[in-house]
Amino acid sequence: MNRPKIVILGAGYGGMISTVKLQKMLGANEADITLVNKHNYHYQTTWLHENAAGTLHQDRTRIKISDVVDLNRVNLVQDTVVSIHQDEKKVKLENGELTYDYLIVGLGFEAATFGIQGLLEHAFTISNINSSRLIREHIEYNFARYNNEKEERPELLNIVVGGAGFTGIEFVGELANRVPELCEEYDIPREKVRILNVEAAPTALPGFDEELVEYAMNLLEGKGVEFKLGTMLKEVTNNSIIVEKDEQREEIPSSNVIWAAGVRGNSIVEEAGFESARGRVKVGDDLRAPGYDDVFIIGDCALVMDKENDRPYPPTAQIAIQEAETTAHNIKTLINGGDHLEKFVPDLKGTVASLGEGQAIGVVFGGKKLFGWTASVMKKVIDNRYLLKLGGVGLLLKKGKFNIFTK
Amino acid sequence: MNRPKIVILGAGYGGMISTVKLQKMLGANEADITLVNKHNYHYQTTWLHENAAGTLHQDRTRIKISDVVDLNRVNLVQDTVVSIHQDEKKVKLENGELTYDYLIVGLGFEAATFGIQGLLEHAFTISNINSSRLIREHIEYNFARYNNEKEERPELLNIVVGGAGFTGIEFVGELANRVPELCEEYDIPREKVRILNVEAAPTALPGFDEELVEYAMNLLEGKGVEFKLGTMLKEVTNNSIIVEKDEQREEIPSSNVIWAAGVRGNSIVEEAGFESARGRVKVGDDLRAPGYDDVFIIGDCALVMDKENDRPYPPTAQIAIQEAETTAHNIKTLINGGDHLEKFVPDLKGTVASLGEGQAIGVVFGGKKLFGWTASVMKKVIDNRYLLKLGGVGLLLKKGKFNIFTK
Ligand SMILES: Cc1cc2nc3c(=O)[nH]c(=O)nc-3n(C[C@H](O)[C@H](O)[C@H](O)COP(=O)(O)OP(=O)(O)OC[C@H]3O[C@@H](n4cnc5c(N)ncnc54)[C@H](O)[C@@H]3O)c2cc1C
Ligand SMILES: Cc1cc2nc3c(=O)[nH]c(=O)nc-3n(C[C@H](O)[C@H](O)[C@H](O)COP(=O)(O)OP(=O)(O)OC[C@H]3O[C@@H](n4cnc5c(N)ncnc54)[C@H](O)[C@@H]3O)c2cc1C
Repeated sequence: MNRPKIVILGAGYGGMISTVKLQKMLGANEADITLVNKHNYHYQTTWLHENAAGTLHQDRTRIKISDVVDLNRVNLVQDTVVSIHQDEKKVKLENGELTYDYLIVGLGFEAATFGIQGLLEHAFTISNINSSRLIREHIEYNFARYNNEKEERPELLNIVVGGAGFTGIEFVGELANRVPELCEEYDIPREKVRILNVEAAPTALPGFDEELVEYAMNLLEGKGVEFKLGTMLKEVTNNSIIVEKDEQREEIPSSNVIWAAGVRGNSIVEEAGFESARGRVKVGDDLRAPGYDDVFIIGDCALVMDKENDRPYPPTAQIAIQEAETTAHNIKTLINGGDHLEKFVPDLKGTVASLGEGQAIGVVFGGKKLFGWTASVMKKVIDNRYLLKLGGVGLLLKKGKFNIFTK
Repeated sequence: MNRPKIVILGAGYGGMISTVKLQKMLGANEADITLVNKHNYHYQTTWLHENAAGTLHQDRTRIKISDVVDLNRVNLVQDTVVSIHQDEKKVKLENGELTYDYLIVGLGFEAATFGIQGLLEHAFTISNINSSRLIREHIEYNFARYNNEKEERPELLNIVVGGAGFTGIEFVGELANRVPELCEEYDIPREKVRILNVEAAPTALPGFDEELVEYAMNLLEGKGVEFKLGTMLKEVTNNSIIVEKDEQREEIPSSNVIWAAGVRGNSIVEEAGFESARGRVKVGDDLRAPGYDDVFIIGDCALVMDKENDRPYPPTAQIAIQEAETTAHNIKTLINGGDHLEKFVPDLKGTVASLGEGQAIGVVFGGKKLFGWTASVMKKVIDNRYLLKLGGVGLLLKKGKFNIFTK
């Protein structure tokens, strides 16, 4: 009756795969498993930009946790984690407290705002289901307002996306497809709407293959996206942004500012006192927090170095999933009294960025480039593979993306 | 080549029926017909509360003018009327000017705000397609915000409808059906949402049959509507209303205030210097403005007295349509050199108020009462008859309401 208690914080990619794996690997009498999450659903963070643009409904993106986790085996606590007290092996929740023998921290990311003035107050971020749905409604509301105003109010129709990294580009791709629909719905001439993508780096998708970046930019510009590269976002006000390029400042009216230019680890991890940089803990090879043999940190809260170039791997769902598998394996080993923990070695399959329905760019399997429709199919295959891993064929059929013939 | 010029202002019920009738009654060489309207579409004002609640899409409510008006016969000017100069037989538009030999004014209603503090700034009105769509989006936006707020913000979920007259009750009926859908869409428990209907009179639907009023209130209360009768709306702020009952004031949080408690005639009519009360001109028996033999005023801008009780007929679509028919007839007579104009005698068929899909109350044909589903079918029959009159079977099939089996 003295079963070890495993507590998993966050039902993101990392938390969900950990839970599902542990539930399979451990016998009912081997451990108590508790999963803590803000909501009773898991969502696919990598689809949130589609919910935010309004091109995909949030119910496609989210999955009831009880649909994939066996509640006879796993204790699901729907609550908000407030703080972690690793020295006392305790976690404080908004409505309670938990103790653990093994802890998995998978609390995901937060937007990094870099202290830009007005950003916190006036800009939106694609962070979760609530915030993404809010972006969709915010833009729709401003479009609905437009024809009710006596004066010309361009800020209602200008959409500014901060950041032309992965998330920014994917979001802009969806917006470019969504805007014509919004124009139709709200009786607005398409040419009145601007989609601006502001990026401090001199190129979109910095670090990505140049030919693919060119393909993406051409395609998006063809759909009316305006890129402002080498341009710093200096300030966000109630109805405008102020940008700077080559020491020239410009004010652009916009009440639709979405910040997609940076993430950091969940600040709970930082506040707990783990050694971290921007909320990300440099974990050991076995994914444990330095100094705490019973705490595993995974996903966007963890920082794993790529030994080949001595730089951290960028935080991705792909890595979160693989870390979860290693973590489940290691906890099983510890519970069984073993001490030979598995080392985490990421097995990167490639990167595909969607550019709106039926369009994408990607690099897969050690350098092969993909464009357009092929890349978009590959993107769906990746997403579907995850669903299969998480919840088997049943979940795949329910939530998978099969509309591969959309051009 | 000296054809008389007929100018029709406003493509509402009155303006549209006038245009369609004149186009049929007059030969191509008998007159020039010009129809001026803000938009290139006509909308059924009597359905706008459904668009505002989000239970019917605006494209069901509106009809492209060119779908029913023959543009070879009628000159359609999409512009906004700024002022009428009846002594010069001239109309100023935002982008031009028109002269006329015969004028039909069918510019419809405006909300009457009775000088209530903050109403103009903070409340919405169900006035046209733009303003109704805005109400739908405003409520959705506030619902979307709710789960993103750190503090409890009940004002986001409280919907206040000012006025329990015809329009107020019809709107509340739609809202009562819509709110559960909104709760589902935005993950909000139904019991957090309040629908409040505030009415200064001691009863809902003042003047309506008591038994029917009771039926309506029971039904709506059963769906969670809270009536505040005998209650004056004193002030609307950014996020609340202040009401007074029995000299007691109460502040109720709400950022969703829709004012449906009073209409007046279009202020352009007043500003033109026609003798009027709240924008409504007491027209002669032949529907001409006092002192102006070439100006017909119809619909909500006209005031026609019911000689039986010496009170004005309430402004309705029904009367606007009938006035349009008389007006077309009278203009035809004048053009043909006649002087025996027809007197307008309303032929009231009854009144039906909808209480949300599949539910209504009504009085038809001299006193017969209708409840529930029967009344709701009658409502649809009335609406369909109008479509048939306006655009024949083609329009009826396109825009009619045939879902009579919805309970
Ligand atoms: C728009 C977008 C597109 C992306 N596209 C890709 C892509 O194509 N490929 C890719 O590999 N990566 C992509 N990423 C990155 C990827 O989504 C993240 O790396 C991944 O989600 C990290 O997973 P995680 O398990 O760490 O946390 P998350 O998936 O962020 O999950 C964290 C979970 O913790 C919960 N939580 C957070 N705080 C608390 C709290 N205090 N209490 C309780 N619960 C809490 C949250 O509700 C959530 O369920 C994208 C990211 C975004 C935003
Ligand atoms: C929600 C609601 C429900 C109702 N339900 C019923 C019902 O069930 N039965 C019933 O009989 N009555 C009902 N009424 C009342 C009925 O809608 C009105 O009496 C009727 O619309 C009046 O018709 P109208 O032709 O005068 O003007 P409207 O239908 O108001 O049309 C006026 C037209 O003029 C145009 N216009 C206005 N100003 C300008 C300008 N400056 N320049 C150019 N164009 C302009 C407008 O765009 C519009 O097309 C309802 C009203 C509301 C608001």
